[in-house]
Amino acid sequence: MTALAAESHDVSRTEQEPGRFGLLYAEVQQFYAHQMQLFDSFEAEAWAGTFSPDAVFDVPTLPRPVRGREELAANVRRNEEAQGRTGEQLRHWLGMVDVQPQPDGTLRTRAYALVYLTPRGGEARVHRVCVMEDSLARCRGQWRVVHRLVTRDDLA
Amino acid sequence: MTALAAESHDVSRTEQEPGRFGLLYAEVQQFYAHQMQLFDSFEAEAWAGTFSPDAVFDVPTLPRPVRGREELAANVRRNEEAQGRTGEQLRHWLGMVDVQPQPDGTLRTRAYALVYLTPRGGEARVHRVCVMEDSLARCRGQWRVVHRLVTRDDLA
Amino acid sequence: MTALAAESHDVSRTEQEPGRFGLLYAEVQQFYAHQMQLFDSFEAEAWAGTFSPDAVFDVPTLPRPVRGREELAANVRRNEEAQGRTGEQLRHWLGMVDVQPQPDGTLRTRAYALVYLTPRGGEARVHRVCVMEDSLARCRGQWRVVHRLVTRDDLA
Repeated sequence: MTALAAESHDVSRTEQEPGRFGLLYAEVQQFYAHQMQLFDSFEAEAWAGTFSPDAVFDVPTLPRPVRGREELAANVRRNEEAQGRTGEQLRHWLGMVDVQPQPDGTLRTRAYALVYLTPRGGEARVHRVCVMEDSLARCRGQWRVVHRLVTRDDLA
Repeated sequence: MTALAAESHDVSRTEQEPGRFGLLYAEVQQFYAHQMQLFDSFEAEAWAGTFSPDAVFDVPTLPRPVRGREELAANVRRNEEAQGRTGEQLRHWLGMVDVQPQPDGTLRTRAYALVYLTPRGGEARVHRVCVMEDSLARCRGQWRVVHRLVTRDDLA
Repeated sequence: MTALAAESHDVSRTEQEPGRFGLLYAEVQQFYAHQMQLFDSFEAEAWAGTFSPDAVFDVPTLPRPVRGREELAANVRRNEEAQGRTGEQLRHWLGMVDVQPQPDGTLRTRAYALVYLTPRGGEARVHRVCVMEDSLARCRGQWRVVHRLVTRDDLA
């Protein structure tokens, strides 16, 4: 049985305390909605602040994993410069967010991630289909990404 | 700092009362799911009823902002006539819904909005990528849209 | 007035008990997120286990409705074989999930369902736009699909 199937046990456990889980699930959705909008709006520092200070961001479009808020923010500024040249608007969407609370109070999430691309005055299209796996921890009452791994379906 | 980054403060505030926020977030998701399905099913009056009586609906595909339920319903009937001619099925999706409760009890939301288009017997495609900004107020226990602004990525 | 518009009454009723509804809504979203990921990962038995033992799965891409966990699991194994040949990765997304609690404690849901297709090393695209209508029942504390009807926009 794979990790994914094994997680079914966590689901049943959390469903035995539906109250707490339901509130947690909404918090995580709000966290991601705000985080993705900050990213697509090139709010470099605000977006980097949604990660823990020593967070690791591992995504196939970067030559090596990015580590820490400085590098995370720099990555957003590079995206903004690229968009200035191409005029292409990217939108990052998450869906099918599977939230698995861990015994230590952190969360493991596995979600699908889409990137839509719209050229100025042109036809919108699906640019990337990815899977995003996060480890989230609470820091001073706020969820923060401690580790993020993104894999692209076209490179699978 | 832009409005979007400033909203981070609201997020932290609402996360200090996660219970109330989590329930609110689910209510808003259900509201939008039902509202978009009414729209795509051409339920003109039922859809218009999800707006406040004097709501303003500002979307770039219309020559001027639509105001009030009569005009909102008429807009849906025009869409239904157009679909009758083209045979194209549209589906409106929201995602990354960022819900920001306001001190006066209203909600500000900012979400991504996609429109998928499927010709009868043809290939489905992404038709539009938009950003939707709403102001929601409770009217007799129900959320209603008071103001909606939609912007299209291709016209940005 | 159509079924969809009639459901507005259920929405208002559930909004009068927002607490319970909000928790329920999050449970349903988690259930679907996990179920779709099991499907796309070809976890045949784990996915079939998210249906009731006598569940009916009615989808236009199958010659006849599938009934029961054996047939459901066999269908996933066929998908896995097909993907092995084509190298195409499918991702099933749900959105705009409208959850309508029924007086008997079951849930009726109506959601949009997208299928994204990514050829290995190729361009991702929207493959299908569908509507999914489920009846869900709790079995030993877990939501299970009792009946699923999927309709495709391109065949409408």
